[in-house]
Amino acid sequence: LFRVAIWGESHGEAVGATIDGCPAGLPLAVEDFVADLARRWPDLPGVSPRREPDRPRLLSGVCAGCTTGAPLTIAFENATARPVDYEQLQNLPRPGHADLPARRKFGGWNDPRGGGHFSGRLTVGLTAAGVVAKKLLAPIAIHARVVEIGGTALAADADPSTLSSLLSEAAQAGDSLGGVVECRAGGLPVGLGEPFFDSVESIVSHLVFAIPGVKAIEFGAGFSGARLRGSQFNDPIVAADGPPATNHAGGVNGGLTNGADLVFRVAVRPTASIALPQQTIDLRTGAPAELRTTGRHDGCIAVRVPVILEAACATALADLMLIEQRLPRIAERR
Amino acid sequence: LFRVAIWGESHGEAVGATIDGCPAGLPLAVEDFVADLARRWPDLPGVSPRREPDRPRLLSGVCAGCTTGAPLTIAFENATARPVDYEQLQNLPRPGHADLPARRKFGGWNDPRGGGHFSGRLTVGLTAAGVVAKKLLAPIAIHARVVEIGGTALAADADPSTLSSLLSEAAQAGDSLGGVVECRAGGLPVGLGEPFFDSVESIVSHLVFAIPGVKAIEFGAGFSGARLRGSQFNDPIVAADGPPATNHAGGVNGGLTNGADLVFRVAVRPTASIALPQQTIDLRTGAPAELRTTGRHDGCIAVRVPVILEAACATALADLMLIEQRLPRIAERR
Amino acid sequence: LFRVAIWGESHGEAVGATIDGCPAGLPLAVEDFVADLARRWPDLPGVSPRREPDRPRLLSGVCAGCTTGAPLTIAFENATARPVDYEQLQNLPRPGHADLPARRKFGGWNDPRGGGHFSGRLTVGLTAAGVVAKKLLAPIAIHARVVEIGGTALAADADPSTLSSLLSEAAQAGDSLGGVVECRAGGLPVGLGEPFFDSVESIVSHLVFAIPGVKAIEFGAGFSGARLRGSQFNDPIVAADGPPATNHAGGVNGGLTNGADLVFRVAVRPTASIALPQQTIDLRTGAPAELRTTGRHDGCIAVRVPVILEAACATALADLMLIEQRLPRIAERR
Amino acid sequence: LFRVAIWGESHGEAVGATIDGCPAGLPLAVEDFVADLARRWPDLPGVSPRREPDRPRLLSGVCAGCTTGAPLTIAFENATARPVDYEQLQNLPRPGHADLPARRKFGGWNDPRGGGHFSGRLTVGLTAAGVVAKKLLAPIAIHARVVEIGGTALAADADPSTLSSLLSEAAQAGDSLGGVVECRAGGLPVGLGEPFFDSVESIVSHLVFAIPGVKAIEFGAGFSGARLRGSQFNDPIVAADGPPATNHAGGVNGGLTNGADLVFRVAVRPTASIALPQQTIDLRTGAPAELRTTGRHDGCIAVRVPVILEAACATALADLMLIEQRLPRIAERR
Repeated sequence: LFRVAIWGESHGEAVGATIDGCPAGLPLAVEDFVADLARRWPDLPGVSPRREPDRPRLLSGVCAGCTTGAPLTIAFENATARPVDYEQLQNLPRPGHADLPARRKFGGWNDPRGGGHFSGRLTVGLTAAGVVAKKLLAPIAIHARVVEIGGTALAADADPSTLSSLLSEAAQAGDSLGGVVECRAGGLPVGLGEPFFDSVESIVSHLVFAIPGVKAIEFGAGFSGARLRGSQFNDPIVAADGPPATNHAGGVNGGLTNGADLVFRVAVRPTASIALPQQTIDLRTGAPAELRTTGRHDGCIAVRVPVILEAACATALADLMLIEQRLPRIAERR
Repeated sequence: LFRVAIWGESHGEAVGATIDGCPAGLPLAVEDFVADLARRWPDLPGVSPRREPDRPRLLSGVCAGCTTGAPLTIAFENATARPVDYEQLQNLPRPGHADLPARRKFGGWNDPRGGGHFSGRLTVGLTAAGVVAKKLLAPIAIHARVVEIGGTALAADADPSTLSSLLSEAAQAGDSLGGVVECRAGGLPVGLGEPFFDSVESIVSHLVFAIPGVKAIEFGAGFSGARLRGSQFNDPIVAADGPPATNHAGGVNGGLTNGADLVFRVAVRPTASIALPQQTIDLRTGAPAELRTTGRHDGCIAVRVPVILEAACATALADLMLIEQRLPRIAERR
Repeated sequence: LFRVAIWGESHGEAVGATIDGCPAGLPLAVEDFVADLARRWPDLPGVSPRREPDRPRLLSGVCAGCTTGAPLTIAFENATARPVDYEQLQNLPRPGHADLPARRKFGGWNDPRGGGHFSGRLTVGLTAAGVVAKKLLAPIAIHARVVEIGGTALAADADPSTLSSLLSEAAQAGDSLGGVVECRAGGLPVGLGEPFFDSVESIVSHLVFAIPGVKAIEFGAGFSGARLRGSQFNDPIVAADGPPATNHAGGVNGGLTNGADLVFRVAVRPTASIALPQQTIDLRTGAPAELRTTGRHDGCIAVRVPVILEAACATALADLMLIEQRLPRIAERR
Repeated sequence: LFRVAIWGESHGEAVGATIDGCPAGLPLAVEDFVADLARRWPDLPGVSPRREPDRPRLLSGVCAGCTTGAPLTIAFENATARPVDYEQLQNLPRPGHADLPARRKFGGWNDPRGGGHFSGRLTVGLTAAGVVAKKLLAPIAIHARVVEIGGTALAADADPSTLSSLLSEAAQAGDSLGGVVECRAGGLPVGLGEPFFDSVESIVSHLVFAIPGVKAIEFGAGFSGARLRGSQFNDPIVAADGPPATNHAGGVNGGLTNGADLVFRVAVRPTASIALPQQTIDLRTGAPAELRTTGRHDGCIAVRVPVILEAACATALADLMLIEQRLPRIAERR
């Protein structure tokens, strides 16, 4: 019921999101987007130098400062598109990118500039949709953070310089890093999720795997839970109307929320575009070629993912909450 | 376009699947289901003693031995339902099960017998749908196998007694084991997957998380890939029309198949129902209670998951192949 | 949210419906279906002599006499299938039927027996789904009746012998009649319908045109309203929370219910299968052929349509009511 | 597969359409939209004096003059929005409009300016989507024309002054006219349409009833066909691979295209906004009030509907053609 369409290309006219089914009466202004859009550009070494102003235009669905119940379109003009950087890539597909599969899928008609539609740039639309979803869901609180970079665990209270050092070192080596991001949603009602195919994990993972670079997701104890025994894994039931005593299940039993925090972690692959030489082929000749990526790229996508992961999670939950009639179709004023 | 509905309850009249959008002209007979249905009941220690005949009735969509193009309904009567085992559970929700969330979601109207709709029994319908999807997809080959049980890795050529010993030991302890199952699909065309939200990983994970007990999924290098650097992770491109040289991406770049095998692994939690005593509450009084699960249960769901995982994968791929017009709407005879 | 799948073939094993998203807690028994199933077989001249027992089996989704919230499957065995009547038709497609288009669409794999999936027999499943939807919607009342047969208007209080005479006369002539059926739903809340594409008229007509034989639908004044002027057509607003003073709009303004009765009429074509000779071709030779339909057929579909039209209307409204959160997901007991 | 979202408000920032699933490689330029956008503003008496420049911006999905296969967003800035005209209407709901139902559905948060989302202005987005769909479908030809205005039939070769006189007369009377518009699509393959609920009539009518003002649709002989006998209505089959000899069915048998032209007519109600006084209530006081609509309005919506009806028809057919794999996912160049 809360349906989001994401559109745009990295170096096209604009990128954005169209939300269908957003409840009416939610106060919404350009200012609401500022904080989350800024979190997409953390002030860290190796973050892409492409700095778009990222000012949202609310093209439809808002009147007198509130959502109207009609489709909500949020557009971001691409102000700093620099297509010239990418021309060579049309014939030298980048390893790890969608360049070659997209070229074959779309018969060469796909937009090759900066990955076109298959670019991290598109996540600005998803982030914007997440802002709306999170406002709707309040007081449900959704928070994501980086818990591992390049194999190094990062505690919630880790010294920020640890992360910076890791990123700087990789950037200087012309290489990139992967990471793990954890997301947590608290305050959910019991019973979200729909049989048979729309378990909470199904809906969340569907949206999460749309985020470029995400290659894995685990709920609760996840892969390490597969090494536990039932007597260890099962979360003891201690109340009829509260969460279990532990949370190995990540807040989901049988596909339904159980009152505990929804907890999941995603693995983000290291950025595909690196300065080090890589092996590809020249599509004009079929001959092997060496590629050194220029353009403006991130050294580590994972550090930009938390706010986007929150957006995917919030979008999933807004939909499930509307289906379960736990979110009214006319928003209460906040 | 290949839409599957799964219906039924563990101890209701019947369970089954209704497939909408199955191409016409696919030869389909009761015999086609035998092998996969048998794989759902592997001959291993600790597998549930409930042995349903599992004979499919093709209620609709088949005529003269072939699919007609109309909706295909496959039903399995529940022959050995024993609801009496489960009566106590209505008031003593089982830890790790959907009992309590389902009771709250459905106001107590859910079928409490053996987990009702939230039972592994339902996977017989999914397995049947998988049989149809795999026949459609041939010569695309999909194969899943257990790669880890209770923390012990199992090579493809592992001595079968290793697995048996692990299962026997846990069963004797009144406990259960988790595991990891890997699925691999070879022979896929390049370019399956749809922007923005219907990446291959999105569609596959959506279906996979409908399998009871699955708590995590990783594609290709997955979580371990988050510890690699871009120069290590990127799969070198060596041909315009073939797969890359390595397969850290698990066959998917930017959400699109890239010509390499689609490879993913799922974590299956240890069975929730165990003979050891567990902590719950009595919903009549709210007082703490101890639960020892009786009834017929598996000691390790993971050993039953491979054929179900193949079914989920095949269902996802049949849909993506039809969307991409790589599967004709009138099946070629096989 | 209230999703119905209809499956089966005229002379296959069974026909039925699978309902996904039915609220939990609705009392439902085989007896609930008796009255509406009987209305599908009105005691009138020319109604098909094929009399199926039409006893529903509730295969899933019901426990202890109430819906569980899980998918609800209702199956009807085809007890009196007589495929032998129809063998010739495989090569002599019947004018006005789907025989030839279906054959070409499905490459000849479609079930040719009695029209297969394209048979009025399928409406038993829709009728059953309507029973469920109408119980959910109470006290909203939905009623349909025949208002015209073969061009003769039938008032609500018309002498039953008028209709019988019309039907008898046509049957004796070896011919068939069309008709117009009106449906009316009262007690609807204001504001059902969703922008942009899911107007009430859109959702209702989508379902209604699935009923075999329906060729037209008009809401309120419909076609005759196109001859009025705005000053005549506009329904004066006389209350903030009640219906307008007249109902030329049929209860829908701008795609949203306005508090007046939802009123629409459908045109049902005369039955295609008639005893009089008709022109077709022999598909084996391509030569012209004459066809006299044997088998068991209706002389006038329209007289059987009212209960089916109510079912289509109720299904549409149940969905819109759930979306608008006007129907709870846990049914109040009735 | 060809999914269109329409967004915007009459006096908001912009209106537009987002198309998901448009095949790649279709040449598309701003010029392609000129002719159809102009047809939305026919040069006739009584057509609204609001003249928007209606210049489409292709925000996404087009690169180097062709569609890319990624979502296509087409936006039209609202250049001449004059919200001041409409302020009174917030408290004086217009008879025949969605004003009051929308206010109640959305708790008063709907955009009241010119009907907001429930305005004919929105059809510019649908018209634009239709341009894309029609280009994809070529050489399938879709053509709609007005066949009746205010009860007066208009032959294809009618003297244009007949229509002008009718419109002028009504405008001078401060009143409005309804009409009937016929749409015809030729060159369709046999077998479009999907069982059970997605008959051609279902899909077409679903989209058509999203057009503001449409209150009825009939296929082929429609309502008059309900007065024929089977022997008159049935279209004789005269070829295995061609259309039947007559076309009472409007090109559809059993929900599937049969090779004849798809033919349907819609009834368009007279414009709701008229200069003559109308009865409404003042929502502040609940007292009866008289309303004379000012603002810029059409005297007869029907004369603007043909190009919009073609767009709805083309959108429906593009979807059905993609499902049936009769349209390639990579467009052939034209």
